[in-house]
Amino acid sequence: MTTTESPARNGVDVATLFATLDAVKASPQIAQFQFRARNDWISGTHSRSVIQGFYGAGQEDASRPEPFWYDADHPAVLVGSNQGPTPVEFLLHAIAACLTAGLANIAAARGITLRRVSSTVEGDIDLLGILGLSEQVRNGYRQIRVRFEVDGDASHEELVALVERSRSRSAVYDVLVNGTDVQIDVAAPDAPGGEPGDRR
Amino acid sequence: MTTTESPARNGVDVATLFATLDAVKASPQIAQFQFRARNDWISGTHSRSVIQGFYGAGQEDASRPEPFWYDADHPAVLVGSNQGPTPVEFLLHAIAACLTAGLANIAAARGITLRRVSSTVEGDIDLLGILGLSEQVRNGYRQIRVRFEVDGDASHEELVALVERSRSRSAVYDVLVNGTDVQIDVAAPDAPGGEPGDRR
Repeated sequence: MTTTESPARNGVDVATLFATLDAVKASPQIAQFQFRARNDWISGTHSRSVIQGFYGAGQEDASRPEPFWYDADHPAVLVGSNQGPTPVEFLLHAIAACLTAGLANIAAARGITLRRVSSTVEGDIDLLGILGLSEQVRNGYRQIRVRFEVDGDASHEELVALVERSRSRSAVYDVLVNGTDVQIDVAAPDAPGGEPGDRR
Repeated sequence: MTTTESPARNGVDVATLFATLDAVKASPQIAQFQFRARNDWISGTHSRSVIQGFYGAGQEDASRPEPFWYDADHPAVLVGSNQGPTPVEFLLHAIAACLTAGLANIAAARGITLRRVSSTVEGDIDLLGILGLSEQVRNGYRQIRVRFEVDGDASHEELVALVERSRSRSAVYDVLVNGTDVQIDVAAPDAPGGEPGDRR
């Protein structure tokens, strides 16, 4: 984690970024990651997740000194108590943050200094689906729109190309657009699941 | 928001829940919601989202007294600074919280009292995709697994049926499994986007 000659353009340690890419090229198996969360129901639609450990680069990560805690809830109009955003709003945070992180990395690799990156995200959803009032309406978002404002020392076309490149390498974009396999099960009453860290 | 005869089983105001369903049946257009987030880049892979207002039930919501703020970042091993979880970890929080909120509502509607609901979520991802080192590897999660532990005054089969019913009505599950339309654009430099609250 030492910077030799590259300055930390955009706050990105470019030398370490390229060294990391070289390390993964040499040992592709270290690219296997497993992220985790644990959630506990509190009351009504209010629950809380804790996120801390993950597996990656061939080992359990121990770099996060404290766990991150997040509440989720429904708003009053949906019979919740406003103790946190709705779960679907966290999807909007995730897509904006993923595209923005990639954008800063790509800009640094291309030698573009960013001055400001902001984005607004909107998601349209018809609750007739989740309320069980229409079989024709899907449960999830009909559409999500992300609008970026990017300011940096490059042409508008180059800045737009950063966003496009980030999109093409975004993990969250891929999952939200293409979907993924989600398996759900319930622990048997006499076999109360595993610890959060269990690997399968 | 008054409870007449139903107690707040599981912290769910069942009378209001059913009244809300009746109101939507009578005026299906109030089921159109738009959720929003705004994200600002801070440095490197670190960004911060703010979530507060949304449109729903025919009006702008004003029930949240304070905005919710969430940081996201990459961990040190991915050349970040650990100022928050990775964006993909927020997807794990979202699916757990969505399934859990639904479960509590459905249990209350079915007259089942819950004592405890916990879940652990794991997501497997091969970073060769997002690092641009393999065209055969997708960017996003290969699989997400959710394991529930549910304790309540019903048989194991009835508790499992709650989870299954929640899955079938989950907005986050639908998006993560089936994907959705995501549109991304960049504001022209002389037209700096709109305010977060703009409708289209």
